[in-house]
Amino acid sequence: MIHSVGAGAAGARDDIQQQGMGLLSRYFAVRQRSQAICAPLAEDDYVIQTMADVSPPKWHLAHVSWFFETFLLTPFLQGYREFHPRFAYLFNSYYYTVGMMHPRPQRGLLSRPTVREVYSYREHVDEHMEKLITQLDAGHPDAEAITARIDVGLNHEQQHQELLFTDIKHILATNPLRPGYHELGTPKSSEPPAVGWVDMPGGLHEIGHGADGFAFDNETPAHMVFLNPYRLASRLVTNGEFLAFIESGGYRQCEHWLSEGWKTVQDEELQAPLYWERVDGEWQHMTLGGMRALDINAPVCHVSYYEADAYARWAGKRLPTEAEWEIAARQVPVRGNFCGEGWLHPVAAGVVSESDATPFMQMYGDVWEWTRSPYAPYPGFRPLAGSLGEYNGKFMCSQMVLRGGSCATPSDHMRVTYRNFFYPGDRWQFSGLRLAEDA
Amino acid sequence: MIHSVGAGAAGARDDIQQQGMGLLSRYFAVRQRSQAICAPLAEDDYVIQTMADVSPPKWHLAHVSWFFETFLLTPFLQGYREFHPRFAYLFNSYYYTVGMMHPRPQRGLLSRPTVREVYSYREHVDEHMEKLITQLDAGHPDAEAITARIDVGLNHEQQHQELLFTDIKHILATNPLRPGYHELGTPKSSEPPAVGWVDMPGGLHEIGHGADGFAFDNETPAHMVFLNPYRLASRLVTNGEFLAFIESGGYRQCEHWLSEGWKTVQDEELQAPLYWERVDGEWQHMTLGGMRALDINAPVCHVSYYEADAYARWAGKRLPTEAEWEIAARQVPVRGNFCGEGWLHPVAAGVVSESDATPFMQMYGDVWEWTRSPYAPYPGFRPLAGSLGEYNGKFMCSQMVLRGGSCATPSDHMRVTYRNFFYPGDRWQFSGLRLAEDA
Amino acid sequence: MIHSVGAGAAGARDDIQQQGMGLLSRYFAVRQRSQAICAPLAEDDYVIQTMADVSPPKWHLAHVSWFFETFLLTPFLQGYREFHPRFAYLFNSYYYTVGMMHPRPQRGLLSRPTVREVYSYREHVDEHMEKLITQLDAGHPDAEAITARIDVGLNHEQQHQELLFTDIKHILATNPLRPGYHELGTPKSSEPPAVGWVDMPGGLHEIGHGADGFAFDNETPAHMVFLNPYRLASRLVTNGEFLAFIESGGYRQCEHWLSEGWKTVQDEELQAPLYWERVDGEWQHMTLGGMRALDINAPVCHVSYYEADAYARWAGKRLPTEAEWEIAARQVPVRGNFCGEGWLHPVAAGVVSESDATPFMQMYGDVWEWTRSPYAPYPGFRPLAGSLGEYNGKFMCSQMVLRGGSCATPSDHMRVTYRNFFYPGDRWQFSGLRLAEDA
Amino acid sequence: MIHSVGAGAAGARDDIQQQGMGLLSRYFAVRQRSQAICAPLAEDDYVIQTMADVSPPKWHLAHVSWFFETFLLTPFLQGYREFHPRFAYLFNSYYYTVGMMHPRPQRGLLSRPTVREVYSYREHVDEHMEKLITQLDAGHPDAEAITARIDVGLNHEQQHQELLFTDIKHILATNPLRPGYHELGTPKSSEPPAVGWVDMPGGLHEIGHGADGFAFDNETPAHMVFLNPYRLASRLVTNGEFLAFIESGGYRQCEHWLSEGWKTVQDEELQAPLYWERVDGEWQHMTLGGMRALDINAPVCHVSYYEADAYARWAGKRLPTEAEWEIAARQVPVRGNFCGEGWLHPVAAGVVSESDATPFMQMYGDVWEWTRSPYAPYPGFRPLAGSLGEYNGKFMCSQMVLRGGSCATPSDHMRVTYRNFFYPGDRWQFSGLRLAEDA
Repeated sequence: MIHSVGAGAAGARDDIQQQGMGLLSRYFAVRQRSQAICAPLAEDDYVIQTMADVSPPKWHLAHVSWFFETFLLTPFLQGYREFHPRFAYLFNSYYYTVGMMHPRPQRGLLSRPTVREVYSYREHVDEHMEKLITQLDAGHPDAEAITARIDVGLNHEQQHQELLFTDIKHILATNPLRPGYHELGTPKSSEPPAVGWVDMPGGLHEIGHGADGFAFDNETPAHMVFLNPYRLASRLVTNGEFLAFIESGGYRQCEHWLSEGWKTVQDEELQAPLYWERVDGEWQHMTLGGMRALDINAPVCHVSYYEADAYARWAGKRLPTEAEWEIAARQVPVRGNFCGEGWLHPVAAGVVSESDATPFMQMYGDVWEWTRSPYAPYPGFRPLAGSLGEYNGKFMCSQMVLRGGSCATPSDHMRVTYRNFFYPGDRWQFSGLRLAEDA
Repeated sequence: MIHSVGAGAAGARDDIQQQGMGLLSRYFAVRQRSQAICAPLAEDDYVIQTMADVSPPKWHLAHVSWFFETFLLTPFLQGYREFHPRFAYLFNSYYYTVGMMHPRPQRGLLSRPTVREVYSYREHVDEHMEKLITQLDAGHPDAEAITARIDVGLNHEQQHQELLFTDIKHILATNPLRPGYHELGTPKSSEPPAVGWVDMPGGLHEIGHGADGFAFDNETPAHMVFLNPYRLASRLVTNGEFLAFIESGGYRQCEHWLSEGWKTVQDEELQAPLYWERVDGEWQHMTLGGMRALDINAPVCHVSYYEADAYARWAGKRLPTEAEWEIAARQVPVRGNFCGEGWLHPVAAGVVSESDATPFMQMYGDVWEWTRSPYAPYPGFRPLAGSLGEYNGKFMCSQMVLRGGSCATPSDHMRVTYRNFFYPGDRWQFSGLRLAEDA
Repeated sequence: MIHSVGAGAAGARDDIQQQGMGLLSRYFAVRQRSQAICAPLAEDDYVIQTMADVSPPKWHLAHVSWFFETFLLTPFLQGYREFHPRFAYLFNSYYYTVGMMHPRPQRGLLSRPTVREVYSYREHVDEHMEKLITQLDAGHPDAEAITARIDVGLNHEQQHQELLFTDIKHILATNPLRPGYHELGTPKSSEPPAVGWVDMPGGLHEIGHGADGFAFDNETPAHMVFLNPYRLASRLVTNGEFLAFIESGGYRQCEHWLSEGWKTVQDEELQAPLYWERVDGEWQHMTLGGMRALDINAPVCHVSYYEADAYARWAGKRLPTEAEWEIAARQVPVRGNFCGEGWLHPVAAGVVSESDATPFMQMYGDVWEWTRSPYAPYPGFRPLAGSLGEYNGKFMCSQMVLRGGSCATPSDHMRVTYRNFFYPGDRWQFSGLRLAEDA
Repeated sequence: MIHSVGAGAAGARDDIQQQGMGLLSRYFAVRQRSQAICAPLAEDDYVIQTMADVSPPKWHLAHVSWFFETFLLTPFLQGYREFHPRFAYLFNSYYYTVGMMHPRPQRGLLSRPTVREVYSYREHVDEHMEKLITQLDAGHPDAEAITARIDVGLNHEQQHQELLFTDIKHILATNPLRPGYHELGTPKSSEPPAVGWVDMPGGLHEIGHGADGFAFDNETPAHMVFLNPYRLASRLVTNGEFLAFIESGGYRQCEHWLSEGWKTVQDEELQAPLYWERVDGEWQHMTLGGMRALDINAPVCHVSYYEADAYARWAGKRLPTEAEWEIAARQVPVRGNFCGEGWLHPVAAGVVSESDATPFMQMYGDVWEWTRSPYAPYPGFRPLAGSLGEYNGKFMCSQMVLRGGSCATPSDHMRVTYRNFFYPGDRWQFSGLRLAEDA
């Protein structure tokens, strides 16, 4: 890591150390990191919502606390009283079985509770969570269930840490002043190696989560899939490669696009990935460090599924399925440009050190890789029991799977079976692509 | 068939006879049937568009003719002059590579060309198609390509015949007077047999179209899939069964629903399938024969994917995948309540005679069966070359696959590999469901 | 008049002869004229609705009949039974006190009743109206009330005759084929005289309807207004003059426009009046006779209040108030280019013969003249009693007054006190302007 | 005044003392008051925008400063450099002739500049304005123009002070927690005197601003109007009286309503004025002091023109015209429940001491009184020259005039000729009504 991030800044290096920690330490480490991410913000930045998909940072901070309150403190900590009677309404995201909730598109209309009050709410929850965790060692009768739920709660908060980065970026990029979130280093960029096409065998393979360790319900059960032989690109598509697509007229030629994608291009007059701007004839793009010249060696980012798919078709290739991705990624250690590296932006292949033992670069980190797999239940899928069953399963419609994590993902949150999912038009996540082709 | 449909009426019995015909006879048989479907309409019915998904009947009649004009007459019939220079703009549906088109939601704003002029257009195209087909026997150099494209054109027109039924139904059902399309017989209804759960083996199976004979590109290539053992219901879900879901509060309980489905239920205040109305305390529903009392023995129809999926979850089951459906349906002859039966509505199991050799009833006809499979390309899929490549492939996003045809499908249009696809919220097609479960 | 209109065509000359007729003859003359206006239509033209403001011609034909049925036959003709129990719902426009109504924007979704059935409805109403009118001579106890209401009904139908023209024009102009309604003559056009600025005295004046004869309630009572001295232009603004505004950049310069008008210009990317199109570098515009080259000598037409007001400000003038207009118009006989002339389009000053006794040309007919007066109640205004009180008074908000009638108005419908009113953004009426200035 | 407002609170008593001040003192007094109004806010409250009509408080604070910067510092203070090059874009409200501006509905998407930076901007402007004002005494060549513009700027800022109150109220009332802005006293409420009907003479009257002293251009020129004799109510309509309208079914009976008003009632399901809520069977309403029980003696407030007009029709009366109001109000000193009283809510007649010399109570302050006069130019109206001409004139369309000021208006901002204007559906201002009738 060739640059440093100051105290209180986002993405502090601690993200890869939680493995050996006790539960209480892990709890505080994760909770503290959410606040560290917000430390560079002005108070104003915490409050606004620049589109329906974005939540105000203070809402994220409160919602993840509500999660612990609702699923742990209220059911399991004797005598617990909720911090505020209306917070269950304000900070429930989408758990209808728990109760009614404030409409998502109106999260930016809440000047109260204030940022300060939200931090008090966090303290209140943390104090009581400490009490509950301490009871575990003392032999709480529901210890197993509680521990499992805390695991969910911490992974949930890590997901919101990534969303904090993406939403803060949207909040700042929407502003005509284009303010940066934090001073960030600029990686040395050099031309990446030419794409290699790695041959992968067809036949029956098992994918999905079957082993020990935490996983979300949507990664289960492990199951067999049959694949034709295929080839997978050795690295991500770069800005320079995507620029060639733009310059050859890719956004003006219907033949590359899915029908919905072409409609989007026309309705929204798209000409480039999100956050790209032509300034005095040069392409720049918004980063968490502010506006920067486009690094043609770095992976392209903030593209929709439509754009990823159109690029692939233009290039005479296709996107991989999630099974194709997973089987390849299994060969690669879970290492890469995660948020702990501190770039908070995808970087050229080689900047972050990776394993030399595999033919693949950038499988993890940098950008979430769009797959051509719709987000659907695995054969035999069963959602978690109770309200936590609303976590993943009910979204298995109309979305696409992305794999591998991004520069905004905590590294200790990632695993090879991890399934992320977004709508095909979504662009505000750190999303990019890797090509595949039939063998 | 216990009722008759008068001359000029829809769904004349001829739909199962085209197999042995010569090409010219087949051409005219299909073309004539489109007009027979429209024969009972008032001129006013041809013109309007009651929602963006619906096209005015005269638009359908013109569009299928434009298809022959564009993909056959203009490229292959020497000296052909198009009927009208602006019809290519007006009646192109979505073939961007052919040229610009009139916006879909404005098809109901076209009082010209009139119905009469559209019929003249059809005659013009038919005359010239006859000329072209006659040249084939005389050894036209492109005979093979032409024949293949005529096959596409006729199958295309058959698809629009089904859409004519569904769109006419919507046009009439939107009208506060609820006029019927045509006098239709009422089938004797008796309680269907209890659902049987047919055990199906897991393992590797081949699905998709690999054999001779016409198929759309999206059914290819044939390919291997791995399935877990499963059980498939022996018949469709009935109105009576769906009524139990309604009466137990299914539309008011979020836990059965996908997130998008629940949003739809609330936004649109859904309480029952499309076309159901409570009249004086009794459920009635709109049919092509007008308003009728609900037949609790007939299959439920006009449900969205969300409703089908919610019903299945409420029932403790799930929807089948398209592979599961196809493997089972392969055992069953392609026979059932298609439009040639003349009911133009799903009927109770047993009304239309089926094979006794299989444990499945109603696999074909009656209603399109929602599967849990998103509409995605088969491994190795290649769209048709040229503009006809826009036919299917570009829609492989955000839609769900339905199988088996309906009471509005021509029987000679159906086959076991046939993939229909609609958005999960669509309800104006004759769509229903069959349950499945893990073995 | 240098052109002829064939039998059955719109705007037959009879419109100025009804004065001396008996009530029954007048009734049939007016009713017949509505049908004559529709005679050139294709059946398809009757059915569609090209924007919410437009009603399908068959709806107009039915609605004016419903008016007689509701306000005359049902209350006053003993034993009368309505033609169809649902027509009151379908063809009520906005009389909430009478009952619920079909939503206005959905009038184009009604393929039934068919055009033929609507004509039957008209016959039914006419037969019974004849019976009722005959009873009047025989001394019906409510004869006075009935006669007054028939007057309202006939004036109401005349208003819809104008709307038939404007709505038919919109229906045809929306069609990419730009079909004409009817073959219409082209007037000889010569340069109009330079605008004269006629000095008008200030002081107290009486305006509004106080005398005998029919008037709508909104023209009453006669009342005093105080005016400053002013000058009124001797003729209407021409296409040529408006073209100068366009060519000097009028649609790109915010300083001429009301705030709402400027928003409209930008949101809708306005560059010219409605129905103007630049074809091969030349301005053409849609007329009821089809597309034609712009006649620079004819009055500008199909401008909104915003455009009329912006033009006036650009020209260093202003629009007159309705009082200023009325006081001037009182000097002029009610004569001009009304629909009976058969042009169905505004014509250059001098084409239609006018009085030489006044300094004003084109005060009546050609185009409705936007005034700067918001449509508000006159001092002491009382709406009609009962449901007919909904006719005018409830619209006295957010609209602007127009005066003088147009080329689509029956001449026997016009008078000096007549107040027409539309929203400031409306452009599909035959609306133009005359300038004024402070003395 | 029977209650006190603490230091830094809104509406401090100073609002009636600026008359005798020097320009610099007046400048600082007005500027300071804007900040005093915001003092009770949490930082979060400054940032959000709860509907398009509302601006975030920090936007108001910046915009009024931009006004001084743009219209005074840049043109008149030699060597002045703008505080930030993009603030002209961010804080221009609607002065198109000055340059492009940030879209109004997106003002709540601006987390930057922060509240702190906006205060720095204010300081910067104040420093330089002090310099400019000091130069005036030293004989600046443009002294007269500058002084006139400062007058406009200070009156402009006072208008935004009222908007700060109304927008803060909306921001807090939108929040499900219903937080109060500030602790406010509750006035002793007693039943107001019965309404008196004061006879006013008809004939010719002069209205409008003709005398010395500041007025906005829209109040000019003074001009003659002719009125019929009329009667004006001696006091405002109360909550209790409006409750009788509600309880008699006023919101469910179409006959009281303008057409647009009835549409609004149905589309938005209105049942009461804005901010009223039924809590446990009792009416409460939101005030700047938080939720309170409805005071039936206080004037009704937060009604639209539609509601005011419907109430008047239900009561068998009408609203006055602005001329009728002005002629009556001329008899009354400009005194009443303005924001300096500190109630920040309308109070029952008698709570704030008024002149005994007139038959009218509550003519000034409490609530803006809807008149039936559309907002239109006075005869002979000329807007200010240059960009300040965009201040008022371009809004003279589709809005209605309100008179008399409210409990949120600074008293030194009011005069008898003052014309406020809002759209007929607007309800978030402190708007109420006084009845009139024809004599």
